[in-house]
Amino acid sequence: MSILDKVNTPADVKNLTISELNELATEVRATVLHKVSNVGGHVGPNLGVTELTIALHKVFNSPVDKFIWDVSHQTYPHKILTGRKAGFTDGHFHDITPYTSQHESEHDFFTVGHTSTSVANALGFAKARDLKGNKENIIAVIGDGSISGGLAMEALNNAGDFDSNLIIIFNDNQMSIAENHGGLYRNLAELRETKGAAANNFFKTFGLDYKYLEEGNDIEALIHLFEEVKDINHPIVLHIHTEKGHGYAPAIENKENFHWRGAFDLETGALKAAPSTKSYISVMLDYLDKKMAEGLPLVAINAAIPGIFGLKQFASKYPERYIDAGIAEQFTITFGGAMAAYGARPIIFHNSTFLQRAYDQLWHDVAINEEPAIIIVKGGVISGSDKTHQGSSAMTWISNIPNLKYLAPTSEEELLSMLDWALAQHEEPVVIQMPEHGVESRLSVLTDYSEPSYQMEKVGEKVAILALGGLYSHGEKIVSELSKSGIEATLVNPLFVNDLDQTFLSALTENHEVIVTIEDGILDGGFGQKVASFLGKYDVKVLNFGAKREFNDSVPASELYERYHLTPELMVADILQLLK
Amino acid sequence: MSILDKVNTPADVKNLTISELNELATEVRATVLHKVSNVGGHVGPNLGVTELTIALHKVFNSPVDKFIWDVSHQTYPHKILTGRKAGFTDGHFHDITPYTSQHESEHDFFTVGHTSTSVANALGFAKARDLKGNKENIIAVIGDGSISGGLAMEALNNAGDFDSNLIIIFNDNQMSIAENHGGLYRNLAELRETKGAAANNFFKTFGLDYKYLEEGNDIEALIHLFEEVKDINHPIVLHIHTEKGHGYAPAIENKENFHWRGAFDLETGALKAAPSTKSYISVMLDYLDKKMAEGLPLVAINAAIPGIFGLKQFASKYPERYIDAGIAEQFTITFGGAMAAYGARPIIFHNSTFLQRAYDQLWHDVAINEEPAIIIVKGGVISGSDKTHQGSSAMTWISNIPNLKYLAPTSEEELLSMLDWALAQHEEPVVIQMPEHGVESRLSVLTDYSEPSYQMEKVGEKVAILALGGLYSHGEKIVSELSKSGIEATLVNPLFVNDLDQTFLSALTENHEVIVTIEDGILDGGFGQKVASFLGKYDVKVLNFGAKREFNDSVPASELYERYHLTPELMVADILQLLK
Repeated sequence: MSILDKVNTPADVKNLTISELNELATEVRATVLHKVSNVGGHVGPNLGVTELTIALHKVFNSPVDKFIWDVSHQTYPHKILTGRKAGFTDGHFHDITPYTSQHESEHDFFTVGHTSTSVANALGFAKARDLKGNKENIIAVIGDGSISGGLAMEALNNAGDFDSNLIIIFNDNQMSIAENHGGLYRNLAELRETKGAAANNFFKTFGLDYKYLEEGNDIEALIHLFEEVKDINHPIVLHIHTEKGHGYAPAIENKENFHWRGAFDLETGALKAAPSTKSYISVMLDYLDKKMAEGLPLVAINAAIPGIFGLKQFASKYPERYIDAGIAEQFTITFGGAMAAYGARPIIFHNSTFLQRAYDQLWHDVAINEEPAIIIVKGGVISGSDKTHQGSSAMTWISNIPNLKYLAPTSEEELLSMLDWALAQHEEPVVIQMPEHGVESRLSVLTDYSEPSYQMEKVGEKVAILALGGLYSHGEKIVSELSKSGIEATLVNPLFVNDLDQTFLSALTENHEVIVTIEDGILDGGFGQKVASFLGKYDVKVLNFGAKREFNDSVPASELYERYHLTPELMVADILQLLK
Repeated sequence: MSILDKVNTPADVKNLTISELNELATEVRATVLHKVSNVGGHVGPNLGVTELTIALHKVFNSPVDKFIWDVSHQTYPHKILTGRKAGFTDGHFHDITPYTSQHESEHDFFTVGHTSTSVANALGFAKARDLKGNKENIIAVIGDGSISGGLAMEALNNAGDFDSNLIIIFNDNQMSIAENHGGLYRNLAELRETKGAAANNFFKTFGLDYKYLEEGNDIEALIHLFEEVKDINHPIVLHIHTEKGHGYAPAIENKENFHWRGAFDLETGALKAAPSTKSYISVMLDYLDKKMAEGLPLVAINAAIPGIFGLKQFASKYPERYIDAGIAEQFTITFGGAMAAYGARPIIFHNSTFLQRAYDQLWHDVAINEEPAIIIVKGGVISGSDKTHQGSSAMTWISNIPNLKYLAPTSEEELLSMLDWALAQHEEPVVIQMPEHGVESRLSVLTDYSEPSYQMEKVGEKVAILALGGLYSHGEKIVSELSKSGIEATLVNPLFVNDLDQTFLSALTENHEVIVTIEDGILDGGFGQKVASFLGKYDVKVLNFGAKREFNDSVPASELYERYHLTPELMVADILQLLK
């Protein structure tokens, strides 16, 4: 019987000897690797904190003492030790979520997924604890990547004014998702080199107490450190040097690719599925090469996720034209906008879910200032993602910003045509919503996107289908289905997410009874509701298809399509019902 | 003839002697005071940087060298020296904007108003300059209050990796709008006390070069410092100790009240207009007192704007229950949400325009986690504000977040009823949109806000008016106007901004031809468009009244009401037209 077999709750960890705990670490690591090699997941972050997690559970008393994990993509060892090891066995991998969830365990307190929140959350808990008159330890665990996010630094500043127990574990594995960027990382290196003794100390400038531990993967050293600070009466930062991917050679050798990885061969680390070949990303990268050759002052900007956009290759070819700002979404938008205002042509690459961090900057820096930056938004679709990365809200919030052109191509040709136009003009910021459903080819007619101009793809009557962006092909299917019922519907490719082609819409009302909109996202605040509002005074009915305003946690997209009547069959049924 | 009479462009500053520059400072200060004492405006920030601004224009060559001002509420001296002194004379006070504007002068580069953007903007300019092969100086001016915002720290971190000219002037006047909060301010104090020599240095931890100047209101010392760093080949922080309100005793003695001040008597500093008596703020504060007496674990949280919510009094009465997080909107939401999750009852006070900074935190921390925090939103209305503080977008972006109850009271009684309910429940976050059009009294019927329940105020037929929140009284007027045309319209008080009372709406379609919505904000993404979408499949017409999605710069509200047909007369005309 293994040690892990006997560990079902944190209490079971407390009675183990150091040598048993070391054996436990080996078994926990193997358990994590079994799961992620089979179904994919965060590899390096979990392997790196295995010893740290065991030591936490050995010294502290969870859930009375409370661990608050930043991002929480490093909590597989914590889950294994807190009654959830079944979720790491064949057939049960999807029984548990990949992040912390208070609905899953009393040892979790937040559902997170974005970075840099843990210190603020922990400080909130600590302040609430003091109001209750409780005495437990509140412990945040935050990585060196996450510290570059403004929210984390706002929280450190506020923690510096706090006068009660708060333990901030700074897990320094010398990596963000990719490598770290920013001057701060030289200070962290200096702190590592001096074993925490350097006089100039980022954390101490916030008025925080500080201790350094070099042996961050040594359980005994960790236990000693935690025992020292347990029940401390003021905030302290424990700067702990760990190794990302510890204990698994492929993850140590290739830290970025093993941050998150699809299913892989445990022996070699090789991916089981070959990466897809042609994608909108590759189309985009080829285009960037071409434009660089033409001498455009292009700059590619991203916030710590170059891998998602294939930008590593661009970075190595054009190092002067590439900026990874670290986990600093706000900065990318203000900075990129300013570059555009001064004549450069920045293209800022964002995952829609993370771009929410820069909402104020989109409004106040880019839009008010009409800075002709180009912002590429990926992942803004209805998908089976977990709820902390739900992209289906992109249109909901991006499309309501004034002075911001928001375009939704349906094909490779349209994407390139939009980029051509966006780079040729200097009047306005342009957001382009990347299609996500496989590369389609469809001739692009429009070349000037300065005014909204919906594209009439098929002239019909009675029913008009406006199928936006990624769900355009749904429109084609519906038209074909309706035809079987004797209805020759009109098909429209709107292209513009947030500017209505009012002339076009008014004209549609003349020989159509029902106007249908289809969009790949939450309806509230999006495309269809703008159409419905505009058509409110006309004698026509409007049907908006899209997602409901709600969070979904890893619900398969197919199930969501059914729920929202986004399958061609269900849409056709709804349309026919209205025609009765 | 005064010195200022001879100064029309920065070039005119360059030929002056030190003693003439000192005289110029006195005249600039008097010019600023003349304007702000007459029409109100930022007092202390402008007075504090008078010498600094003169020295900048003496040493550097604007607009080739570029000054980028944080918030830009301290740019009156800059405006006076760059050809805009006419805007400080009687009858012309409103010819110029209160912030920088690239449309107003070639010496301005951004339209800003929110804090903490200057370093990111300056870094963008510096990077674009290098791409062009230009050589000018790029100079950011940022205050000690603004540095607590996450965006500023993200930018300092990125600046630490930059290898070319960038001058960051850190204007340390030891004040935010109110006093500063956070551990960082102890490091700044240490730097001031040691004249910049302290080994532990916030700016240096980002890898930035650094110089300190104690005499920040001494033109000669400033000129010497600026000459030293002009054309520097790497980023440097100039930590300059200035006095907020310098040269005007009332502003020095009462720094917070003279940060921004309405028109005042120049001799005494006393406000010309007495502050209004009863307001929704005072209603709110009385309520908080009552709830504190009842023993509720209330905590009042804000981000550097206690004055706007009258929270100074609360803070002095209940210091343990009051948190000013500094200019750290993101932090307030994550932190406050966590407090709510752990049983405290935080009320987080925000101006709608600044709350945009915490958009991701509203989605990911408060809403996904269903933390029962209460968020009070002020200023979310159509008003004559400048465009960098335009609050008319509040409903546009707050109302599309899932799991977030968003309520709009129309009266004192409704506000208190909503607060009662929000504090009694523990299931969900609640945003309350403060009415802004004078305290109205109107009986509140509803006591449970867990499900949307529109209030039928007058039963009519043919036309139904749904008048939301602050514009409810518009609905009353329209009903009364329509009555004169023989139409007895229905009047509805929706109360709920983002959850539709679908049963109620469906029922309305039975005996109404036109459903009218009225809201105090941008239509896109708001209340009316949700109603129009829901009613799209019914045989009824819908008219949405509200603001267009656009930025307006200090356009009087009355003019905007005309433009958007938000006057009762214009609305009635539109309704009658549709009934024809």
